[in-house]
Formats: sequence, C-alpha cells, structure tokens
Amino acid sequence: MTQGRPPTDRTRVRRLPEKQVESAEVRDAILAAGIVGHLAATDDHGQPFVLPVAYAPWRDMVIFHGSTGSRLFRSLAAGHPTCLTVTLLDGLVLARSAFESSINYRSVMVLGRAAELVGDDKSDALRTISEHLLPGRWDSIRHPSKKEDAATMVLALPLTEWSAKVGDGFAEDPAEDLSPETFGGTWAGRVPLQTRLGAPEPDQYAVGVAAPEHVRAWLEE
Amino acid sequence: MTQGRPPTDRTRVRRLPEKQVESAEVRDAILAAGIVGHLAATDDHGQPFVLPVAYAPWRDMVIFHGSTGSRLFRSLAAGHPTCLTVTLLDGLVLARSAFESSINYRSVMVLGRAAELVGDDKSDALRTISEHLLPGRWDSIRHPSKKEDAATMVLALPLTEWSAKVGDGFAEDPAEDLSPETFGGTWAGRVPLQTRLGAPEPDQYAVGVAAPEHVRAWLEE
Repeated sequence: MTQGRPPTDRTRVRRLPEKQVESAEVRDAILAAGIVGHLAATDDHGQPFVLPVAYAPWRDMVIFHGSTGSRLFRSLAAGHPTCLTVTLLDGLVLARSAFESSINYRSVMVLGRAAELVGDDKSDALRTISEHLLPGRWDSIRHPSKKEDAATMVLALPLTEWSAKVGDGFAEDPAEDLSPETFGGTWAGRVPLQTRLGAPEPDQYAVGVAAPEHVRAWLEE
Repeated sequence: MTQGRPPTDRTRVRRLPEKQVESAEVRDAILAAGIVGHLAATDDHGQPFVLPVAYAPWRDMVIFHGSTGSRLFRSLAAGHPTCLTVTLLDGLVLARSAFESSINYRSVMVLGRAAELVGDDKSDALRTISEHLLPGRWDSIRHPSKKEDAATMVLALPLTEWSAKVGDGFAEDPAEDLSPETFGGTWAGRVPLQTRLGAPEPDQYAVGVAAPEHVRAWLEE
C-alpha cells in the first residue's frame, strides 16, 4: 500500500481521529470513485461559497473546470486559498442511542491554492475530466472549439495537503445500552446506500439509436 | 406553489442562470431529499474548509450538529459567515460535444451566519436531525444523556439568503453538431443516477433479530 504523508496541523482529523486514513492509495480510490466535489471560494468580505463541481484526479492534482466568466473561479485562479471535498455516502449506521447513530462515508478534503492550466495541459485536463465522468466517450464526441476553450477555465489543486476519512463499521454502543434491561433487544446495524446508473434515455435526435458500447459498459460495472 | 424571495446580489446565479429556481417549495423538496450537506468554515488565515455534515430542515432554518470540541464549529457559533450546500446528483448528460456534456443535479446553497441552539430548541433539533436521517427511529432508541448533550453543538442557519439550481433536461447541442455530416448520428441523452438503500445488516448483537418496521418502511419507499 502506498504510504501517504502525515497530516499537517490543518489536516489532522481532530473529531473521530480513528477514522483518519493516511494512505494515498485510499485517497486515490475515493477520488477515482467520485464525480462531483464541493469547492470553497471566499469573497472579499470573508463569505465562503460552496459549489458542486465535476472534478477528476490528474497527475498529482485534482482538476475541475468552470466558466472564465465566473468571479469565484477567477478569484481561485488569482491564488486565493480553497478547499475541495469529495464525499461518498456508503450507508446509515443505526445504533441503540441517538448519539452513536451516524452515517458511513468516505471523504477526501484537499486544501491549498489552485492554478490555472493552459495549452496542452489544459487540453489534456479537459479530456481527463470528460473521461473520468463519461469513460470511453471522448473519441465519439466533438472536442472543444477555440471559442469553447476560451470560455472554459481549468484549475488544478495539488494533492499536497489533504486528509481522508473512512467510516465503514457498525456503531459502538456502550455496554449499558446492550443490556436486556435497556436497549439490548433493539435492532441495530447498517443500511447500505447504493448508487447505480439507470437505463440510458435517448434525446429527441437519438430515439431508436442504440446506446453505444461505451455507455452500455458503464451499466455492467 | 410557494413563491420564494428574489436572489440577492450574492445568491444570483450568474453561470447558467436558466437553471436558477426561486421557488421555496423546490428548495424545500431538495432539502427534504438530501441527508448530507457540505459546510464551509474559514480559519483566521482565510483558508476555507469544506466538511460533510448531516443536516435537517427545521422551521425556517437548516440545522446540523457537531462536537463542542470542534474549532470550526466553535468559529461558526461565534458568528463567522458560512455556507451550506446540499447537492443531489440526478444523472449524466451526454451531448454530442464535450462542451455541452454535463451532470444533472439539484442543489441548494444557503449563505449566512449560524447560531447555536440551546435548551428545548436544541432537544427538538436533535430529534429532528435523527428523524430526518432515520425516520421513525427516535422512539426506539436512547435519547442523549446530559454528558452526550454537553458534547454536542447544534447550529441553525436561517433560510434567508439562498439559491437553488435544478438541471434536469437533455443537452442542447448546437445545430452544427446535429447534421448527418458531423455528429448527428451520435447517440446522446441522459443516464440517470439512482440512489437506493440496500438490505439492512444487523450488528453482532442483533443477528437473528428482524429489522424493525420503521427500517423496513424505508426500503419500500
């Protein structure tokens, strides 16, 4: 297993530290499984905004794109600190007390400053984001025109300061809740949350056209 | 349909404004359907952090809880500006170009300052969060002890400044991509993303005990 770097003072998990994972391999598996992260940008008055963004892992960074007209994206390109968090919900954790009830999830939080990609790096990053979201589709569709490229900003956030958390177990009910006189007879456990792709729906121009092999392959995973 | 309030300068959606929804009813339906939001807190150096938090709608607010030992929660309770964003992923949108490809999602972003709840409001809020995540379970489990209550901070963020976005259509490919000479023969459409609950798994103390009615009811929804 790849060894990650130790957490910094900013990324050390203080709440439930037993859930912290320092493995870069686990981090990369979470980033590979997600498609949307939540990105922070702060305005000049200290007001943070949290935006859902499609992202992809790329080299030793996470990349995401937005409009060159977006004030928040421009502020990130100017070097303001940001945070991208990717969370995968895995299930409900039912305990015998409200306090121990929780949610199992895997998450990665990346802190730092993003940089704008240009030229060949930008082209490669755009293809990477498309292939992360829609594997195998890039060769079937029209690639960005000069005008579209000019309207798109691609930002890269290095994976240098990050933390990962994995919660995957059952609740740990204290002994006093497990007695037959208290809540020992109460059912507790996990209820998994599962995300899957449904049947492809053609648009009005593709009615009667079979979904292509690359789309059908997603459904078999 | 309940009419929402017009967006402020901070919540007006500038990118893809056609996706902005000003209806409080749509906002409330999104908040009712989600269980985890992404919460921003900014440290003294302007570094934002984005944390996944279980939340619930409550009165005219959104509420969430954390540890009284959390520096970030304490900074929010002290009145630092925050943002909570709830995003529901509904599907992949496949266009005939990379530029028009996207993701259908519904999201609500709430801006403002949170306040700590105490006393009866805190108790009611904790019950509300539990019932939002685990409907029907509250009456079967042990409620917070004094010690647990003291370790828990509940924050409420008013639904006064918010925006909602809904993307639910197909891609709008430009005419030049629809010609038989270009990409008119390319399949395009939507692939739904569906989240469902799997079979309940008992913990080691509940093996052989039937999952209770309130849990089985979730699976039938």
